[in-house]
Amino acid sequence: MAAPSEEEGAVGRRYHQRSTAMLDVPFLPFCAFLGTLGLLCVAMVGSWCQHWRGGFSLDGSSRTFNWHPVLMVTGLVVLYGAAALVYRIPYTWSGPKLPWKVLHGSLALGAFILTVLGLLAVFYFHNSQGTPNMYSLHSWMGLGTVLLFSCQWAAGFGAFLLPWAPTWLRVLYKPIHVFFGSTILLLSVASCVSGINEKLFFSLKNGTMQYKLLPAEAVFANTLGLLILIFGVLVVAALARPSWKRPDSDSPDSRQPLLAAER
Amino acid sequence: MAAPSEEEGAVGRRYHQRSTAMLDVPFLPFCAFLGTLGLLCVAMVGSWCQHWRGGFSLDGSSRTFNWHPVLMVTGLVVLYGAAALVYRIPYTWSGPKLPWKVLHGSLALGAFILTVLGLLAVFYFHNSQGTPNMYSLHSWMGLGTVLLFSCQWAAGFGAFLLPWAPTWLRVLYKPIHVFFGSTILLLSVASCVSGINEKLFFSLKNGTMQYKLLPAEAVFANTLGLLILIFGVLVVAALARPSWKRPDSDSPDSRQPLLAAER
Repeated sequence: MAAPSEEEGAVGRRYHQRSTAMLDVPFLPFCAFLGTLGLLCVAMVGSWCQHWRGGFSLDGSSRTFNWHPVLMVTGLVVLYGAAALVYRIPYTWSGPKLPWKVLHGSLALGAFILTVLGLLAVFYFHNSQGTPNMYSLHSWMGLGTVLLFSCQWAAGFGAFLLPWAPTWLRVLYKPIHVFFGSTILLLSVASCVSGINEKLFFSLKNGTMQYKLLPAEAVFANTLGLLILIFGVLVVAALARPSWKRPDSDSPDSRQPLLAAER
Repeated sequence: MAAPSEEEGAVGRRYHQRSTAMLDVPFLPFCAFLGTLGLLCVAMVGSWCQHWRGGFSLDGSSRTFNWHPVLMVTGLVVLYGAAALVYRIPYTWSGPKLPWKVLHGSLALGAFILTVLGLLAVFYFHNSQGTPNMYSLHSWMGLGTVLLFSCQWAAGFGAFLLPWAPTWLRVLYKPIHVFFGSTILLLSVASCVSGINEKLFFSLKNGTMQYKLLPAEAVFANTLGLLILIFGVLVVAALARPSWKRPDSDSPDSRQPLLAAER
């Protein structure tokens, strides 16, 4: 096959530029849409537990369990997604990177704290009811996701915010951190979806309220599950989009730790 | 902040080269590992249905249902994953792209046919038993995934194999096709995991076989679910790895359709 002529190459580049321009979506409106979708997921999971599942308490009953889905969706999906998107905000691209690193780490820490509280809620409920913990595939996947998240946070803090990590280690670890950032979010989403599915089979058993008769609660919670899926996929799409990435990711400032080491 | 000196820039590049070299994993051994993992998933889902769920038949009983998990894991996860990885095989990088396009499309078509047979199995089982279809979140997500997959296959065939799509449309659509390629695989994996979780709650109800007592079947099927998750994440990681991508993705040959249009 003949090599492409210069003219063919120019045509290809022109097509590429034109099609890239056609696909251009401004980040901030997309981000506002994502924020609205995330808040809708939080509002829906709260409404589901409040309206259909008896509300919230700390007495070890199923009303204690209800904190579990609310805290997991809020922490491990929505707040985690917000933390992941920090470096895609164009304001973060100029000036020192350190404040944005601290914001990224703090949002992720907030997400982690909500996640741990969400785990405590379900363990406390199980122990109060004499139900075994950690037997379903949902629980195995969910706990695996939280363990990965804790490693991700600790390794990110150690590599990017503390001063002792050598530069080669930061450069080596960064693509791993970025990859696991998206992966953990998708595992969180998969955990939430399997958890909602499981909860509906547990709760909707009797008479006209059977899950298979698709009562209003089932439609509502299934829709919530799909919205969580869409949120997760859109956040990962935003993270993967080349034109939304911080352009100067290799500047010396990007390696600035929280505490400067003595030199 | 001072701009990086030339020396600092050189140090950064050296670190980057060294750390990239440290992360280098050869594609073919990784691919062999992925193939083994995929075959293990197929063998395990088959063994689960054969050994614990009564085997296979076409009589509308739960033995008809058993085709559903086997066909979905084989088609929508493992064969789909193989189709997605075709362009990462270094042999495909030189010479005409068309045979690889045909292989990619054929493997994806095979995956789609197994998937449709898997859907038929569960619909036939439900209809034979008088159980409603499409009520659970698993079914909503699963059918959504299959619909996305059918659009992906049809759009890919129309844009990349038929001669009528203009070049600008191919250039515009390619990143969308690539993004949905990974997304559909992860949705498939999430669907499989929620389905295995659901099936275990349905099947393990009585006496010492209750799911919450974690009998051998539950450990086996939970492990299968985790292996499916790991397979999906590793395929997506392989697809995302820059050094494993076909380098000349913009060559004129990459736009060669199956049937050449009259010029």
